[in-house]
Amino acid sequence: MKVGILNVTAYSGLELVRILARHPEAEVTSVTGRSAAGRKLAEVFPHLTSIPLTVTEEITETVDLVFSALPHGASAQKLAGLLDQGVKAVDISADFRLRDAEAYRDWYKVDHPAPEYIEDSVYGLTELHRDEIASAEVVGNPGCYPTAAVLGLAPAVSAGIIEPDVIVDAKSGVSGAGQKLDRAYLYSEVNENLRAYALDGGHYHLPEITQELVALDDGSEFKVTFVPHVVPMTRGILATCYAPLRPGALGAGVGKQREVQDLYKSFFEGEPFVEVATSPPTTKQTLGGNSCVVYPVVDERTDRLVVVSCIDNLVKGAAGQAVQNMNLMFGLDEAEGLRELSLYP
Amino acid sequence: MKVGILNVTAYSGLELVRILARHPEAEVTSVTGRSAAGRKLAEVFPHLTSIPLTVTEEITETVDLVFSALPHGASAQKLAGLLDQGVKAVDISADFRLRDAEAYRDWYKVDHPAPEYIEDSVYGLTELHRDEIASAEVVGNPGCYPTAAVLGLAPAVSAGIIEPDVIVDAKSGVSGAGQKLDRAYLYSEVNENLRAYALDGGHYHLPEITQELVALDDGSEFKVTFVPHVVPMTRGILATCYAPLRPGALGAGVGKQREVQDLYKSFFEGEPFVEVATSPPTTKQTLGGNSCVVYPVVDERTDRLVVVSCIDNLVKGAAGQAVQNMNLMFGLDEAEGLRELSLYP
Amino acid sequence: MKVGILNVTAYSGLELVRILARHPEAEVTSVTGRSAAGRKLAEVFPHLTSIPLTVTEEITETVDLVFSALPHGASAQKLAGLLDQGVKAVDISADFRLRDAEAYRDWYKVDHPAPEYIEDSVYGLTELHRDEIASAEVVGNPGCYPTAAVLGLAPAVSAGIIEPDVIVDAKSGVSGAGQKLDRAYLYSEVNENLRAYALDGGHYHLPEITQELVALDDGSEFKVTFVPHVVPMTRGILATCYAPLRPGALGAGVGKQREVQDLYKSFFEGEPFVEVATSPPTTKQTLGGNSCVVYPVVDERTDRLVVVSCIDNLVKGAAGQAVQNMNLMFGLDEAEGLRELSLYP
Amino acid sequence: MKVGILNVTAYSGLELVRILARHPEAEVTSVTGRSAAGRKLAEVFPHLTSIPLTVTEEITETVDLVFSALPHGASAQKLAGLLDQGVKAVDISADFRLRDAEAYRDWYKVDHPAPEYIEDSVYGLTELHRDEIASAEVVGNPGCYPTAAVLGLAPAVSAGIIEPDVIVDAKSGVSGAGQKLDRAYLYSEVNENLRAYALDGGHYHLPEITQELVALDDGSEFKVTFVPHVVPMTRGILATCYAPLRPGALGAGVGKQREVQDLYKSFFEGEPFVEVATSPPTTKQTLGGNSCVVYPVVDERTDRLVVVSCIDNLVKGAAGQAVQNMNLMFGLDEAEGLRELSLYP
Repeated sequence: MKVGILNVTAYSGLELVRILARHPEAEVTSVTGRSAAGRKLAEVFPHLTSIPLTVTEEITETVDLVFSALPHGASAQKLAGLLDQGVKAVDISADFRLRDAEAYRDWYKVDHPAPEYIEDSVYGLTELHRDEIASAEVVGNPGCYPTAAVLGLAPAVSAGIIEPDVIVDAKSGVSGAGQKLDRAYLYSEVNENLRAYALDGGHYHLPEITQELVALDDGSEFKVTFVPHVVPMTRGILATCYAPLRPGALGAGVGKQREVQDLYKSFFEGEPFVEVATSPPTTKQTLGGNSCVVYPVVDERTDRLVVVSCIDNLVKGAAGQAVQNMNLMFGLDEAEGLRELSLYP
Repeated sequence: MKVGILNVTAYSGLELVRILARHPEAEVTSVTGRSAAGRKLAEVFPHLTSIPLTVTEEITETVDLVFSALPHGASAQKLAGLLDQGVKAVDISADFRLRDAEAYRDWYKVDHPAPEYIEDSVYGLTELHRDEIASAEVVGNPGCYPTAAVLGLAPAVSAGIIEPDVIVDAKSGVSGAGQKLDRAYLYSEVNENLRAYALDGGHYHLPEITQELVALDDGSEFKVTFVPHVVPMTRGILATCYAPLRPGALGAGVGKQREVQDLYKSFFEGEPFVEVATSPPTTKQTLGGNSCVVYPVVDERTDRLVVVSCIDNLVKGAAGQAVQNMNLMFGLDEAEGLRELSLYP
Repeated sequence: MKVGILNVTAYSGLELVRILARHPEAEVTSVTGRSAAGRKLAEVFPHLTSIPLTVTEEITETVDLVFSALPHGASAQKLAGLLDQGVKAVDISADFRLRDAEAYRDWYKVDHPAPEYIEDSVYGLTELHRDEIASAEVVGNPGCYPTAAVLGLAPAVSAGIIEPDVIVDAKSGVSGAGQKLDRAYLYSEVNENLRAYALDGGHYHLPEITQELVALDDGSEFKVTFVPHVVPMTRGILATCYAPLRPGALGAGVGKQREVQDLYKSFFEGEPFVEVATSPPTTKQTLGGNSCVVYPVVDERTDRLVVVSCIDNLVKGAAGQAVQNMNLMFGLDEAEGLRELSLYP
Repeated sequence: MKVGILNVTAYSGLELVRILARHPEAEVTSVTGRSAAGRKLAEVFPHLTSIPLTVTEEITETVDLVFSALPHGASAQKLAGLLDQGVKAVDISADFRLRDAEAYRDWYKVDHPAPEYIEDSVYGLTELHRDEIASAEVVGNPGCYPTAAVLGLAPAVSAGIIEPDVIVDAKSGVSGAGQKLDRAYLYSEVNENLRAYALDGGHYHLPEITQELVALDDGSEFKVTFVPHVVPMTRGILATCYAPLRPGALGAGVGKQREVQDLYKSFFEGEPFVEVATSPPTTKQTLGGNSCVVYPVVDERTDRLVVVSCIDNLVKGAAGQAVQNMNLMFGLDEAEGLRELSLYP
């Protein structure tokens, strides 16, 4: 199986290279990049010395699947041509996440460049859309924040135990911002610092979260407040999700705690990459690995459900989930190439 | 004015030394510590080479005021003796924060060692209790999280624009945990890691937050969910506070944003250490300084108020506010010794 | 092939678990620990949820090889018993690194607990002792600093181009200190801080470095100054090595640079885990991987050789090299289990 | 006393604002900047809310002294005009550090823009040139690395106890690179990473170090190898300096250690900002303060002097020393505005 990566020099593109290097069935044969075109990948990123690829402007090989780590807009445009030729695609950009071209325009302030492919595309949150992904031509790989938030809330929404009124307070390492050259991302500015952002107008991952929660709740309205924060670390997302318990949905007293645990464990039973923890998880448990660790707890003083959800934003939040989806699209074991333990400490 | 510090070797005790070294009216003349007793302070903490103090087991000088950085329980016990002798006190421990000895027992699992002093003590959140502090014999210096959270919510609660149903999602640098020798606080464990804690049973700063919000809201019930997180940085707290707007409390449309800003600016008018920001603040703006930067914003999609509040946990969240309170107790300019700009970057 | 790990709860023990989990030929069947004995490994270290091992006090299975992550002294004592039974061993402690029991006593201030095994043991710097390791019963896995320093200097010493008078200025992430509960290793103390240590009396990795350089130089005297530093990061060692060029050993002018590069490339030709870089390496290039990246450069103003050498202290500096040695001892491909790319960023 | 700052938006310019805000005799009345011109300083750097300055393109007030945080080249050019008008200057750029216009051209690859001022300028390493600084019109404020290295070596060179053959292995926080927008300075690249740089051709602080050591040694030749490293922290420099002891310069045996300590203590006696430590210092001891902590030790195995020297690169390594020099130039107490204790932890 031959694979191409569009814009390999993005952090998520490089993470694909790392993961696929150990994949027994897939071989990366063509990688593109703009500023690095013509150079060996290992020259630009010396940790890849053992990878003999050269960066080109366009995909130069016949490939079975392309991953795109291009910016949104550019991504769908480039993928449209490849999809026309029958190449399958997993798009790590935002272009195939929203089911609705108008919502796309509202949030991204541009017309969708390939609206004809939206309908056939599948939202690639693997645990929720496994079957559709298996037969999809193009998968819109979820954003990092939505992956953590939706997996954290899915069992509760699906079981109807919470009101459609949630708050997602998410904290992310700074690699999610990629290699953007802006004072705000310099080491001296991020280190020993903490900030909330996207408070005015909202973050463009919000509609994605809402879309998936609504779908799980049979289409009801969902009030979602989503506030992302930048934390001084490179990798990792921890989303703390809050929602009022629906009155009467759970039994009374301390039993609630166990009831919620059971409900979560049962929802994710057999999932290779979601773990329901029995004590509060840390992002480090997921460092470099494809797992999502979810910890639900009932705040009995306020009858609120609190869920902590941790991922590595570049793995389950990007490249790892993309490979998980690729595996499904080609009938492989879903966990192929993704079984590595997390790095600790 | 002579000042003593109980348990000076705690981070908050050392921060008192740093701040008071530049205070023109107060002189630290006696500092205690257990394991360091008999040693020069500068031997144990070499950044204090210029400070000629020796650590002793007990306060050895006649002092006008003591700060206590002792653990709770031990603190009130030791302070009781000093208060009996007419020494004023600012207690950085939790012993004089809760107005109610029973609540104290519930949360701290011990009987209050000096309940007779509770009634006369004042909760030292300076901006809310300035007048009582000025005439107090003993001040219970607020916890770091409550300082950030209550200052962030006070204008809204006081004006009655939010429902008594708030979520405080707080993120803190690890110096708040002091010098506790536990694997969880080792560099290799905190670095590149993020975790929520105190999810089962609640954090002991919760009753303090609730107590103050209830007082601001004329005694109504208040539902408060408080989830603290440890972030890989040394200093700084950012509290993100969420509450539903009370229907009709604000006008409609985009005017809400400005209305809330105005309300906050007016509430904190003239405050030397609270700044109402017009863009999302960062903890680094407060590094080493006594300021609290508050940023209120309305999430119009959900009619929720979101407030971001930043402090340096060791300054406004501990030693700085303690000095601010001391200044009031002795009729000095409230800002004396506290005017230093933050360290940046 | 069955493998045991003594003191699995040390960082190097846990790193062995991580690496061996992907090793196709070796299975970890027994792991010991003192404080964690009786508990599931995954309970104590939740990132290991998928590993079904329980910590025991002693090795409970018949194993072909044990790794020891015990402290020195305790390690040789425990290993002696297992070696007597014909189990092979790779000792990550310092007990089988020095060829000389007296030097051991001088540096470690205790008598060697199993001197009878010293002579048959092999110093496990794989690239220098490959053949002896292949037939060894017990391998003394090198210290992290010596691994970086000796690989950085070996080609130059071996070719006789430098004087036997070197300075190794080494900088290490703090995971090298393990989980030692000491104020010096708390996050708040290590973060935004930098220090040199072991300046009085010398670091116990010094005799190891000297021993290997002397051996490479046919036994001449070697003056070595070794100063280690703690850097605020978790993993990674960068050793900067300095030595005067032997007069006349290299040609004149700019050709020296190339001559040295060629000499290094030729020395390490075919090595799976040593890379001779053509631009200054960074520790991040080695994060989580088993490689050592070496960069030699001539300071023409002073006729000094400067070599920068980078490793991940827990992989090539501990567990990775231990597995590399195990592979050799069992006739496996030396790189088995060790081919993962480094984590970036 | 009125003071202007050229290019205030540089980290060293902002640090000047922080330090001068507490200076009782100097008032910053005019600050320049290019991209921020026309904006309030507090808008661009919100931690400066209490500072009412507006950034302008040129100095708009009559000032007694200007600090320049402009890039080299631009700095001398701009200062020449102001010096002509009788304004005194402390130049934080490199333009007035080298005594020799040719050396300047060799290292900076441009002609010096105001060579006529070189002769009258003074190298502003306060401890070595105090008297000349007091009467200077223009002071070339030292580079951060030379400040640490030269103070670390000055007593030894001056006493003639070392050979003129030194190695300076220096490690710096990344704020020394300013706000340069380059992938290499992004948080994700610097964090958990360590690198040496300027290995080919040498760092432009080298001639400054050599110039000062030669001057201290009565003009003999000096071989200096200087290798700087970037460490994942914001502030702080630790320079580890190595030099062979001159045979016979010190007595034999353990007395050497004390002899060197005494020599250092005597050299720096009475210095307000240099501390000779009796145990290895850490950069954190200097965080935010103007001190340089020096720790000399004899490596008796190799008869080498090792000196560890720590500063805050933005204070003693830039803005703090600049203010120290300004104080001297105006006959003020040298320590005015610089007595703040370091931030800890």
